[in-house]
Amino acid sequence: MEGLLTRCRALPTLATCSHQLSGFVPHRFHYCVPGGGRRLLLSRVFQPQNLREDQVLSLEGRSGDLTCKSQRLMLQVGLIYPASPGCYHLLPYTVRAMEKLVRVIDQEMQVIGGQKVNMPSLSPAELWQATNRWDLMGKELLRLRDRHGKEYCLGPTHEEAITALIASQKKLSYKQLPFLLYQVTRKFRDEPRPRFGLLRCREFYMKDMYTFDSSPEAAQQTYSLVCDAYCSLFNRLGLRFVKVQANVGSIGGTMSHEFQLPMDIGEDWLAICPSCSFSANMETLDVSQMNCPACQGPLTKTKGIEVGHTFYLGTKYSSIFNAQFTNVYGKPSLAEMGCYGLGVTRILAAAIEVLSTEDCVRWPSLLAPYQACLIPPKKGSKEEAASELAGQLYDHITEAVPQLHGEVLLDDRTHLTIGNRLKDARTWMNLENIILSKLTQEQKMKHRIFSLIGG
Amino acid sequence: MEGLLTRCRALPTLATCSHQLSGFVPHRFHYCVPGGGRRLLLSRVFQPQNLREDQVLSLEGRSGDLTCKSQRLMLQVGLIYPASPGCYHLLPYTVRAMEKLVRVIDQEMQVIGGQKVNMPSLSPAELWQATNRWDLMGKELLRLRDRHGKEYCLGPTHEEAITALIASQKKLSYKQLPFLLYQVTRKFRDEPRPRFGLLRCREFYMKDMYTFDSSPEAAQQTYSLVCDAYCSLFNRLGLRFVKVQANVGSIGGTMSHEFQLPMDIGEDWLAICPSCSFSANMETLDVSQMNCPACQGPLTKTKGIEVGHTFYLGTKYSSIFNAQFTNVYGKPSLAEMGCYGLGVTRILAAAIEVLSTEDCVRWPSLLAPYQACLIPPKKGSKEEAASELAGQLYDHITEAVPQLHGEVLLDDRTHLTIGNRLKDARTWMNLENIILSKLTQEQKMKHRIFSLIGG
Repeated sequence: MEGLLTRCRALPTLATCSHQLSGFVPHRFHYCVPGGGRRLLLSRVFQPQNLREDQVLSLEGRSGDLTCKSQRLMLQVGLIYPASPGCYHLLPYTVRAMEKLVRVIDQEMQVIGGQKVNMPSLSPAELWQATNRWDLMGKELLRLRDRHGKEYCLGPTHEEAITALIASQKKLSYKQLPFLLYQVTRKFRDEPRPRFGLLRCREFYMKDMYTFDSSPEAAQQTYSLVCDAYCSLFNRLGLRFVKVQANVGSIGGTMSHEFQLPMDIGEDWLAICPSCSFSANMETLDVSQMNCPACQGPLTKTKGIEVGHTFYLGTKYSSIFNAQFTNVYGKPSLAEMGCYGLGVTRILAAAIEVLSTEDCVRWPSLLAPYQACLIPPKKGSKEEAASELAGQLYDHITEAVPQLHGEVLLDDRTHLTIGNRLKDARTWMNLENIILSKLTQEQKMKHRIFSLIGG
Repeated sequence: MEGLLTRCRALPTLATCSHQLSGFVPHRFHYCVPGGGRRLLLSRVFQPQNLREDQVLSLEGRSGDLTCKSQRLMLQVGLIYPASPGCYHLLPYTVRAMEKLVRVIDQEMQVIGGQKVNMPSLSPAELWQATNRWDLMGKELLRLRDRHGKEYCLGPTHEEAITALIASQKKLSYKQLPFLLYQVTRKFRDEPRPRFGLLRCREFYMKDMYTFDSSPEAAQQTYSLVCDAYCSLFNRLGLRFVKVQANVGSIGGTMSHEFQLPMDIGEDWLAICPSCSFSANMETLDVSQMNCPACQGPLTKTKGIEVGHTFYLGTKYSSIFNAQFTNVYGKPSLAEMGCYGLGVTRILAAAIEVLSTEDCVRWPSLLAPYQACLIPPKKGSKEEAASELAGQLYDHITEAVPQLHGEVLLDDRTHLTIGNRLKDARTWMNLENIILSKLTQEQKMKHRIFSLIGG
């Protein structure tokens, strides 16, 4: 028994068993309905895949440019497909992973009191002219006119829109604050050089939160809470990150931090002090600064990719749009603001970049598109004896463990070897997850899986 | 006991009890954490509300235009807020309702084998020029150029994009088909007269599905399955609908149906035969046609609003983009297509339009932003005796019934009467739902609720 357990641990979420096509002929859809239940058949998933590296380059209209590992892998295995420069179709596995990521983000934002809103992408020029960003943001803004000649940009961020919305509420009281309003929507930036797949796109998903507090002290407390929520998020995803002091850029404000994932293809240089807690984007330091400003020790340099960014804005935007509340003395007072971004599609690609090997996609456990995969033996192989068990096992597992509903694939491509399918399986599930330990609570299932894996 | 039950049924999801502020002073957030749990406090929800009708008109920049009931109610109670003509901010309650609607749509699409993708809004002009819709769609397309002068439109629909994506898959076999690919994303249409709030927007959420079959017969079968899924969806939402034959318009194809909700402010005229199953958008009939073409009986006229639209496209798009698969004889063959839309934000507004009274928002049970609301008595009232029970009840309910996690509000606005808060409660919950029947399974909870409601 111990031997079986060990073998199970080595293949924690993969159970292989024999399979005869007669048992579950693929029906019209990737679901088939043999006994009232539905099976997700891998052969029916829309996943253009198995491209060679030169085919990937030609997809992107490039002849020999370097692309990064996550971009190459995501194209090769059919997670994304180019639509136009810096714009990608997200294919079914990626959409599943993104929806899981959004759920985790929702949890973290709602624990600290975040409320979800949804603001239009069409953002009127007047809003941006009021803050002068219509000019400042230059060619990064994608601009258009409607049929009446009225000018808009496609929102790359929404400080103007949300501050105008809060300013329109004429009876806000300090008792109602803070408001932490966030959305998960597409953003647009006309990058001069979109590249690295989902790491630097022109159209991408971002979580952006805007906070409104009644005092600088309360706003600082909110700032800390959001930063803590970001730390919790990256910890839950199992991604090693660094929080560094950062420039405020065109967003503005008086304090800013970036959440960076250290990686070689990162576009930011980070200075980290091994002796104390100091860390900074090198943009914020003097060129000559080689020592830690806090402890004077030597700084370590590393490259990173920004996956989150927080800004303490003060009254920069609330003063322009007159976003006021009635304070404890009954007087009007400007709201103290913060804004907080997370690159949703970027986190997906960055996670694949840091976790994957050169030829195998690896996902964070929480984000793997599927939780488990059943791989029946190759057609015509000697293990085919235990036929029909694959389908039965699938039905039993999904019935016995409600958390697995919709989360288990049956790899019915029995013309392929188990080895090849095992390798593919990393594309849509992670090999470290905990499903088997849940299954072991189901004594019956455990025995069945053991008997199958044990041959 | 029977008397209590009757009273409970009259107020099925509302339990009132006494409340002392000392028991749960609102903390920094709309959640407070008295005993480790979190409570959703209504006073902290971002919901600009209680506008008079003239204030609603001025929000929309109108002096005296008629608006429809759903638009007026959604603005008055703070479900939406205008951002620019035909573009709205969706506020927290609406986002919750929309997320619930998307989950129901996901279920219906996935039961029939739908796979979710996500295509960019920036849609290259070449795609639209290939089908001639770049010209045909005229001013309805919002167009823009990027920093390199390349032209795009903001996708109002994605036949071109998805067909090009399928055409790029060079090794498709008939064995893999059908593919049913769908997305739930923002769409853009530069309406000449955006109006009626979320019923006719310039930027809105749509579910659009595109199907690829290996034969006209299979495509017809897919068409029927999707129509059945739409029927199932509207039945689950409790919305009375009519499926009518429709014009194909600029989408094209050879057969089309609309799913219409009958209502006075509808912009389509429908002809329905009371004697047989015939029903049609009157656009598809001769002006002179007063009798049913099927049974010759007289036709009934009614107005409706289109909430879904299905098209059998044949090879209109697959022939242009050469979207082929290898058929059973090993020869290349064009995919047979269908496309299927659901107006996501429009369904929300249409449901409110048909279900609400003149002054009370009503939601379909499945979509109500919250499932239950606890209303403690007014501050200073004689019922205040049973203090602290509101908070305890809240904690017990959310602990005892896991389905209610995040679904229960505590209306801590104890400066308002219970009657006023009861009226407001319709904005964020439905009064017909089944929560109490779930609660009655919890004997302890039942007694507590009865004792509270029973005074």
